[in-house]
Amino acid sequence: MDKDKLIKYRQAVQTLLSRYVAEDVTSEDVEVQLICDVERDHYQWINVGWEGLKRVYYSIVHFDIRDNKVWLQQNLTDSISGS
Amino acid sequence: MDKDKLIKYRQAVQTLLSRYVAEDVTSEDVEVQLICDVERDHYQWINVGWEGLKRVYYSIVHFDIRDNKVWLQQNLTDSISGS
Repeated sequence: MDKDKLIKYRQAVQTLLSRYVAEDVTSEDVEVQLICDVERDHYQWINVGWEGLKRVYYSIVHFDIRDNKVWLQQNLTDSISGS
Repeated sequence: MDKDKLIKYRQAVQTLLSRYVAEDVTSEDVEVQLICDVERDHYQWINVGWEGLKRVYYSIVHFDIRDNKVWLQQNLTDSISGS
């Protein structure tokens, strides 16, 4: 039961982040990365690159799965919308 | 040849970050995470948690492997030493 739940959570988190990453619109010099560590259950959507001379490095959303729960560790979707 | 190099780089980056993560000293409420996405070649060492009421979320070191090169995307080892 718990194992099924874990598999379901892993799929849900990865599907959600994949969709966000696919729809993320950035400038040419900013890369959108999906980072999935399935072994340690860390999942991220980040932006990396440059806006002119300014370094861009944002972890936009970060989920962990721990103790059969999904933890939202970071959520910048409100603060950097349009990035 | 390139394949051997890639395997070597992947091992080197993971060994280095694992060592950093193992030696990282944080307060009780700050978790040290190693995040390795071997499929997409993104590797991170981060701190997540709380210092009192202040949220802690740092990507301390982030490596990518791309085009047979190791890219250092983020390095906060100087700015938050002791954390």
